[in-house]
Amino acid sequence: MTDTIYQPISAKETHAGELERTSEITEYSNIMGIEVLLPCFYVLYLFLFFVGFPASIEGRLLLTKKPDPKNAAATARWLVSQNSWGVLNTISSDLGGSPFGNVVSFSDGLPNKGSGIPYFYLTALDPTARDALKDDRASFTISEYPIGTCGKIDPENPTCAKITLTGKLKLVDKNSKEADFAKSALFSKHVEMKDWPEDHNFQFFKLEIENIFLIDWFGGPKPLTLDQYLHASLNWFASNS
Amino acid sequence: MTDTIYQPISAKETHAGELERTSEITEYSNIMGIEVLLPCFYVLYLFLFFVGFPASIEGRLLLTKKPDPKNAAATARWLVSQNSWGVLNTISSDLGGSPFGNVVSFSDGLPNKGSGIPYFYLTALDPTARDALKDDRASFTISEYPIGTCGKIDPENPTCAKITLTGKLKLVDKNSKEADFAKSALFSKHVEMKDWPEDHNFQFFKLEIENIFLIDWFGGPKPLTLDQYLHASLNWFASNS
Repeated sequence: MTDTIYQPISAKETHAGELERTSEITEYSNIMGIEVLLPCFYVLYLFLFFVGFPASIEGRLLLTKKPDPKNAAATARWLVSQNSWGVLNTISSDLGGSPFGNVVSFSDGLPNKGSGIPYFYLTALDPTARDALKDDRASFTISEYPIGTCGKIDPENPTCAKITLTGKLKLVDKNSKEADFAKSALFSKHVEMKDWPEDHNFQFFKLEIENIFLIDWFGGPKPLTLDQYLHASLNWFASNS
Repeated sequence: MTDTIYQPISAKETHAGELERTSEITEYSNIMGIEVLLPCFYVLYLFLFFVGFPASIEGRLLLTKKPDPKNAAATARWLVSQNSWGVLNTISSDLGGSPFGNVVSFSDGLPNKGSGIPYFYLTALDPTARDALKDDRASFTISEYPIGTCGKIDPENPTCAKITLTGKLKLVDKNSKEADFAKSALFSKHVEMKDWPEDHNFQFFKLEIENIFLIDWFGGPKPLTLDQYLHASLNWFASNS
């Protein structure tokens, strides 16, 4: 094994590094004085306005610290909780049974109250929902990369975490309490959804997870059962509140 | 149709907006004087060091203007050329034929010389390559969202472009000229790949595209043949050089 060749800075070191850089900014502001800093913040504001905040839907990103990669369940729940979109894969009925991935938005719950189960707002005008209604085998794939915590590490590098949840993509009964939950979860994270065209007949779907494939470090996929994944939340949020 | 409800700023307006904001920064620097601006740039530097540049692999992003969404072929080639990663979907041999998506890096050529055909650097230690060697049906899905040009538009909104290339995932003969091309294409875009562990037996793969599913505006997927897609490059780069 030659892992050391592309060994990145560890998650802990990254967070420590961020803290160091924060204090560096604070010290510098003491030296400079407020009369210089105010225009600086205007320049910073202009810069942010110019560059924008890619990958910052609803400002939920970077709010919660990335867990230690050794904690597979917490890392998996963090990935699902912090992301706003992923690729939902179905068996294509249009393309001879090929696997078909589609970019979709999702939510697993209200901010910092995720359930771990991804909910979607799909229309059968799109092939994904049509496929699922014929063959519900599906998977949902999420990368850490758009969260912004991988730094300069390549998206395929195993330390830039990725998760694939495999299972069944199910339509949620629109008159159920679960539909209310899905609506709150999705519309709180994806505000524009509430204004999407009614005549497109968007419906709530969920992935009933059966298998979890998580890569968050060297050494292959992490062993992680559905039960460990679903019950990670309390411990995880308790230790980060 | 109630498309106007979630009609976003068009691509052209976005680019115009960027230009306006650039000139605003220039004007402000004339008013302020260099003695104030120098510390400002230090603050900006610290900020960038602190926040980092998510989604900026090899600094190729935002270098090339997003094409007009009406030009489906150019938009498709732009999406493939500007992105560095996506989700590669196979039929899972481990999970009873479920569609299995995996986060991978890719390249379609040297910077600004893309061929439109995505190449990958995969190891059979990962299920994706193993699956493809048993059943080569595959699709590759890319979102505009991580490029940063969707702004505040939701990743699932049809004006935040997305593409799925469906076809066959093929191993590239390691002694062929095509393998040399794949190597240059991938290693120029993903510099760390050249140092990935030899004992993992990474190999070059490519997607032989058969079908293109592109969403880049309201009104459903754009009609786009493989021929139109593959031959878009010359016109597209000629009009942007």
